[in-house]
Amino acid sequence: MVIVMEAGSSPGQIAYIKEKLQKAGCQAHVSYGTSRIIIGVIGEDTRRKLEDMAIKAIPGVEKIFSILKPYKLASREFMPEDTLVQVGNVVVGGKEVQVIAGPCAIESEGQALKTAFAVKKSGATLFRGGAFKPRTSPYSFQGLGEEALKIMAKVREETGLQIVTEVMDTDTLPLVAEYADVLQIGTRNMQNYQLLKKLGEYRKPVLLKRGSSASVEEWLLAAEYILTGGNYQVILCERGIRTFANNTRYTLDLSVVPLIKSLTHLPIMVDPSHSTGKWQLVPPMSNAAIAAGADGIIVEVHPNPEEALSDGAQSLTLENFNSMMQNLRAVAGAVGRA
Amino acid sequence: MVIVMEAGSSPGQIAYIKEKLQKAGCQAHVSYGTSRIIIGVIGEDTRRKLEDMAIKAIPGVEKIFSILKPYKLASREFMPEDTLVQVGNVVVGGKEVQVIAGPCAIESEGQALKTAFAVKKSGATLFRGGAFKPRTSPYSFQGLGEEALKIMAKVREETGLQIVTEVMDTDTLPLVAEYADVLQIGTRNMQNYQLLKKLGEYRKPVLLKRGSSASVEEWLLAAEYILTGGNYQVILCERGIRTFANNTRYTLDLSVVPLIKSLTHLPIMVDPSHSTGKWQLVPPMSNAAIAAGADGIIVEVHPNPEEALSDGAQSLTLENFNSMMQNLRAVAGAVGRA
Amino acid sequence: MVIVMEAGSSPGQIAYIKEKLQKAGCQAHVSYGTSRIIIGVIGEDTRRKLEDMAIKAIPGVEKIFSILKPYKLASREFMPEDTLVQVGNVVVGGKEVQVIAGPCAIESEGQALKTAFAVKKSGATLFRGGAFKPRTSPYSFQGLGEEALKIMAKVREETGLQIVTEVMDTDTLPLVAEYADVLQIGTRNMQNYQLLKKLGEYRKPVLLKRGSSASVEEWLLAAEYILTGGNYQVILCERGIRTFANNTRYTLDLSVVPLIKSLTHLPIMVDPSHSTGKWQLVPPMSNAAIAAGADGIIVEVHPNPEEALSDGAQSLTLENFNSMMQNLRAVAGAVGRA
Amino acid sequence: MVIVMEAGSSPGQIAYIKEKLQKAGCQAHVSYGTSRIIIGVIGEDTRRKLEDMAIKAIPGVEKIFSILKPYKLASREFMPEDTLVQVGNVVVGGKEVQVIAGPCAIESEGQALKTAFAVKKSGATLFRGGAFKPRTSPYSFQGLGEEALKIMAKVREETGLQIVTEVMDTDTLPLVAEYADVLQIGTRNMQNYQLLKKLGEYRKPVLLKRGSSASVEEWLLAAEYILTGGNYQVILCERGIRTFANNTRYTLDLSVVPLIKSLTHLPIMVDPSHSTGKWQLVPPMSNAAIAAGADGIIVEVHPNPEEALSDGAQSLTLENFNSMMQNLRAVAGAVGRA
Repeated sequence: MVIVMEAGSSPGQIAYIKEKLQKAGCQAHVSYGTSRIIIGVIGEDTRRKLEDMAIKAIPGVEKIFSILKPYKLASREFMPEDTLVQVGNVVVGGKEVQVIAGPCAIESEGQALKTAFAVKKSGATLFRGGAFKPRTSPYSFQGLGEEALKIMAKVREETGLQIVTEVMDTDTLPLVAEYADVLQIGTRNMQNYQLLKKLGEYRKPVLLKRGSSASVEEWLLAAEYILTGGNYQVILCERGIRTFANNTRYTLDLSVVPLIKSLTHLPIMVDPSHSTGKWQLVPPMSNAAIAAGADGIIVEVHPNPEEALSDGAQSLTLENFNSMMQNLRAVAGAVGRA
Repeated sequence: MVIVMEAGSSPGQIAYIKEKLQKAGCQAHVSYGTSRIIIGVIGEDTRRKLEDMAIKAIPGVEKIFSILKPYKLASREFMPEDTLVQVGNVVVGGKEVQVIAGPCAIESEGQALKTAFAVKKSGATLFRGGAFKPRTSPYSFQGLGEEALKIMAKVREETGLQIVTEVMDTDTLPLVAEYADVLQIGTRNMQNYQLLKKLGEYRKPVLLKRGSSASVEEWLLAAEYILTGGNYQVILCERGIRTFANNTRYTLDLSVVPLIKSLTHLPIMVDPSHSTGKWQLVPPMSNAAIAAGADGIIVEVHPNPEEALSDGAQSLTLENFNSMMQNLRAVAGAVGRA
Repeated sequence: MVIVMEAGSSPGQIAYIKEKLQKAGCQAHVSYGTSRIIIGVIGEDTRRKLEDMAIKAIPGVEKIFSILKPYKLASREFMPEDTLVQVGNVVVGGKEVQVIAGPCAIESEGQALKTAFAVKKSGATLFRGGAFKPRTSPYSFQGLGEEALKIMAKVREETGLQIVTEVMDTDTLPLVAEYADVLQIGTRNMQNYQLLKKLGEYRKPVLLKRGSSASVEEWLLAAEYILTGGNYQVILCERGIRTFANNTRYTLDLSVVPLIKSLTHLPIMVDPSHSTGKWQLVPPMSNAAIAAGADGIIVEVHPNPEEALSDGAQSLTLENFNSMMQNLRAVAGAVGRA
Repeated sequence: MVIVMEAGSSPGQIAYIKEKLQKAGCQAHVSYGTSRIIIGVIGEDTRRKLEDMAIKAIPGVEKIFSILKPYKLASREFMPEDTLVQVGNVVVGGKEVQVIAGPCAIESEGQALKTAFAVKKSGATLFRGGAFKPRTSPYSFQGLGEEALKIMAKVREETGLQIVTEVMDTDTLPLVAEYADVLQIGTRNMQNYQLLKKLGEYRKPVLLKRGSSASVEEWLLAAEYILTGGNYQVILCERGIRTFANNTRYTLDLSVVPLIKSLTHLPIMVDPSHSTGKWQLVPPMSNAAIAAGADGIIVEVHPNPEEALSDGAQSLTLENFNSMMQNLRAVAGAVGRA
């Protein structure tokens, strides 16, 4: 159930209602929009409880309605305004399109810094890099771990770019969270509920990639696991789905971008690198993502893709990234973004 | 095998080689590019035959090479320059992005004319309409048939817009070809080889939609069936593939757009109406298609979608189409198209 | 709508009702079951028309009900008893499991006869062979055409095995129908509606393969196209669907076997050769098909698979087919079949 | 690389080689077959190291070869004999087909005991029950947790049936491992590498379900994560994949059963309940699984499916399970199993 408060309702009124709800065994999630305040109520039998408590009669309450979708806090009905996720000075979900760029895996300080300075100059606003890598084979390079996190901290210090990196499990979550500005959940972990629940306890933005065979509903329910924990800073990320079409690594499902915008208030980004698996397709698909309404992209860039320890085939060179960025801003402008 | 002729080679030289090839039991396909002439040689054992005939020694022959891809005439190797398909004054595959618009099915002269005048005013350059409709159920409306073709002829007369309509089988092909300017092959017929072979005998542009479970290779081989007949005016059209993702009617596989551009010289358009099945998604996905590099889009427009005899849910109103077009031109400009 | 006639209703009563229905612009399909006669009524507004004509009051009419499924004649509601398809002495859909075997393509009389005698001895009850082959590439072997049909006629004469062969288009349908005992519709033509409609005019059994991306509903609606023409002898055939799983050529969707049995009265067979694409998997998947309840299988057998002109990798040798058959009968017995 | 030891090689020789390998930075995995002993060598540059150490010259070494597949310890090349997984008195992978049965979720002691006694009587050899449930929605019943584990311990005590239950994360792994006889990894966790690595440290059988969009190679590489830890008791379980086919919950990919048997020595079971999502399809698909060569099935059984807290639609009643089992044994017999 959702309780909408009148424009001028006071903090005291909010607090009073929250208290009543908690006593009745309900969870209360408060969202502060520009024109009104919304209280999401989660729990069993919430409709009856709200009636029993006569919540509607409490001063400041404008209306009460139920959300029929299986996801509640993630739904547009719960929050009609777009969620803006703040990462340092960068706002994801606003007018400006954000570009997260960097190597698949952090390989050395030199590689990381060189890439970071270059992508920043080209217009990237956030830096990505893998420290703990989920690899299909136990014999593949698994990432530099904490060393990579330290390198990224140095990158942030030197370039001012905030850091996006993947967290793979609950064991390394505290360590990763010490360093990262945005905690990325990879496609294989989209339904790792234990991890999602733990992320709900943090107050750091989460970049939640879509599972490669997840429906939109399953994806938003995964976000719901984080939101119910009280962490409302979730960025969705489409990264391709598994289909019969083997001409690209995955099939980039761009139609979900406008669909997601209608179903949820959460921002959505697109990963054209992992989805296509081919660097040549990254610039046109980045343009397409922004034209479809995405709030940004996350792309793999490497100073020397042929020598990359992972995913070289899908990494842009620094030069290719730079020329892509020129075009991307023009497309952003054409659809009313910056 | 492909024979590349020197810049100044004469018609006589071409004719001489063609004759030799035919005598040896090979098919010869000649393409006139702006800077050179290319002869595609199809047949069994062509490599050996070309060697036996010492084709390389004939004056005017610059080089000979084999095409390793299963499709030959459709491949970029065969023809490095983009194929431009001419439909009246409209060129598909050039700088200008083309927009085919119209109702799913022609329902009446009034409906067709009203739609045609409106979409033309908004910037559509070709008119589409269904006369013979392939319907999943034998009990669904199957189209007005010849009556619809006559209505479309009138639309062309009155608006000057050339006509795109689907041909469903070899029986009705001669009739449809009498009226249509572009013969559309629907997704269910992409591997109807008898029909493809017959289309190869025509000298009319063909819009070849991708089968909903066709790989890129199968799609280009379907085009090859038409090309080997001598009809080189083939436009490809991505219209969504069958995947597990049930949030849209099909999954629009936009990544094939730049991929197709690298594999073939044929132009490619995108159908955002059938792929998404939701009119709200058509404008953003049209933008995305153009941003990805498509040569145009084909969209369903109906004066009154709620009363449409088929596919109402995915049809734009005249107003929505008009506002979409404003934005589309801006996106086209941003990626260097018009 | 479906009209169920009382057990002892007379031919005159049936004829009277048929006449009334036709006058009212409805199609009438009569099915003679062992205990009752059913009249399927297809057309617009049938419910109202039946009421207007007071059909329920006509002597012999037991009850009238509507079929809510999109397919009518194909549905179990329309005909609760299993349809038995008679091919010569062979009954498909009865207690006995039927095995259609033979080479992918007829290559010569010798190859065909050798295969036919061998598979018959091993227990095959019908012979399959390709005359007109739908090939993905225009450069692949397209079948021997009429010559192959003549060879198969000879096979029938010499072995007594009835012939199953694919018909690819309406142009060659009359020719193929002259020779074949069962007309096979391949996966690419499942939604070739013109062809399906023409098949409805024949009185020969049709083996309707599932489209590789067809839902069960689309498949049954394709059958409905044939049934509405008055040809009730349709055998369904599951032959694998397109999925991400690339370990086999297609993914054999065996769960549709019991599902189909609950939705329709038509018999269903399974093709383990095309679906898996690997001869090693054919025996276990044949066993699985029968265990799941299929009415039979259709398998590719070749005296010398390595030299086959098509699909060698999925063809069983005569020896492998023979040893497979021993096991298959045991499995049939275990699930109450013969 | 794989080192094959001569039939009569001594424990001392094995130990000597192991020591040498470990000093060289390689992992050594020893498998004791009935006729020979095999040492799998994992690490970087193993081919060169084995040559440098002249392993081939050590007494007892019969031959050395490399495994080209990405998975090593899981491959048939590494271990030609079938792995037999021992769970109490029950052997998975041998001649006898094993049946794991029980409710989706443990709801009460009464429900668990009633089900367990009934399924045992009908021929089930292992008991399954959910304690920690991975649920798509955070608002769904999440399982009784430790209470359910205690109930299952009681079930084991009273019925003698060993217990199979899912472990969802590394946090609850020690607790679950205290109670469970087989640790089940669900489809969502197939690529939860941290969890897989931890399982490698245990010496308990693991039932590894296939990810719903996992290729066979990814699945075997997930098994490899467990095997490299030294836990060789892995049972694979096919449970349906995500495809466009929405007529069943997932598409049961039965063809992987014989395929898996050729690629790996690990046993494979099939879950017809989750894959089909419909209890009516469970008996025929169980028959099909066994006929295809599966080593067993895992099915959901509930005394009162309509009141089940989860997955009621796919649960068999006790009566239906019993009648299914009669048929299953006949099918097992028909394919040479017991």
